[in-house]
Amino acid sequence: MKKLTFWFEFASTYSYLSALRIAPLAKAAGVEVVWKPFLLGPIFAAQGMTDSPFNMYPVKGKYMWRDMERECVKYGLPVAKEPAVFPGNGMLAARVATLGLGQDWGADFVRGVYLAHFVDGKTLSDAAAVSGVLDGLGLDGAGVISQVDQGVKDALRETTETAQAMGVFGAPSFTAEDGEVFWGNDRLEDAMAWAIQ
Amino acid sequence: MKKLTFWFEFASTYSYLSALRIAPLAKAAGVEVVWKPFLLGPIFAAQGMTDSPFNMYPVKGKYMWRDMERECVKYGLPVAKEPAVFPGNGMLAARVATLGLGQDWGADFVRGVYLAHFVDGKTLSDAAAVSGVLDGLGLDGAGVISQVDQGVKDALRETTETAQAMGVFGAPSFTAEDGEVFWGNDRLEDAMAWAIQ
Repeated sequence: MKKLTFWFEFASTYSYLSALRIAPLAKAAGVEVVWKPFLLGPIFAAQGMTDSPFNMYPVKGKYMWRDMERECVKYGLPVAKEPAVFPGNGMLAARVATLGLGQDWGADFVRGVYLAHFVDGKTLSDAAAVSGVLDGLGLDGAGVISQVDQGVKDALRETTETAQAMGVFGAPSFTAEDGEVFWGNDRLEDAMAWAIQ
Repeated sequence: MKKLTFWFEFASTYSYLSALRIAPLAKAAGVEVVWKPFLLGPIFAAQGMTDSPFNMYPVKGKYMWRDMERECVKYGLPVAKEPAVFPGNGMLAARVATLGLGQDWGADFVRGVYLAHFVDGKTLSDAAAVSGVLDGLGLDGAGVISQVDQGVKDALRETTETAQAMGVFGAPSFTAEDGEVFWGNDRLEDAMAWAIQ
């Protein structure tokens, strides 16, 4: 089965759209999704950016939230709202996702975190919020979080380095097995088509 | 007939895609396109940017040219290539377009300039290149350029100010009669659908 790697950052609004959309599209196309949570912070920093472009350029930021609203309606998804802290710090959630994607609850956790953060307004960095998503999946939230060890932390750092080395500079991104990079939720369908060609 | 205003900058790659795509889409939707050439320079400067984001962030720039190649293929358009000078200075072309859009050759001139610049590799600021596009339309290129007077220059400045006042921060952008703003060639179809709703 052909693979498409999905690179996402929990603080990224457009990653929310792709995280909720990708599974049914991949199923229909017969493509296996490789879910890769990573951190945009180091990648933005390497480009000389110290904040989200949506904060650096407020006119663009204001537009983005309006665009998100329209996009959510277009895709039939719960409407994403600006959280109290934006961009959130997705490190804990990304570490837990790294753990879960090696088990069988990773994708459900990813979708749950996006909904908790952008729809329910939970603070991304809040351990109780992350734990709550795990509890909602029938897992022992606190117990799972306690499994985040140095190996998980290193794995996330390596994923971020791999993303950067592949030419990923924003989120969401998609890479095909031949290394072709697609950036943005708007390119999800194109990336899927590329993966199966 | 419902109207959709199309804001474009000649140096903008994604504006090329929309400039070549918008007329048949509008015809099919029964929408009148209001073509508005403007200058991104002052709008970028107001956001604190002194160069194209594709030059400020080279990884993103490299990706953009690859994306453009794929997009042109997807839309069946001649493939846009990186010109010797990027971003080009579109002031003369935008002034001439402002003149032409008040006559009957504006849209053809706009398409001609994009093709000359991004496909044939002409330098955007080169008066001979702009004149050549006009000549190709059966006009007297040098004569038309000599008609660019203070009124035309002021009209272009006002268009840029109007774009900024409407919340336009990049190109291409589209605005519906109710003021709804759509940014990017990826939103052209959505903007068209909004215009007729």
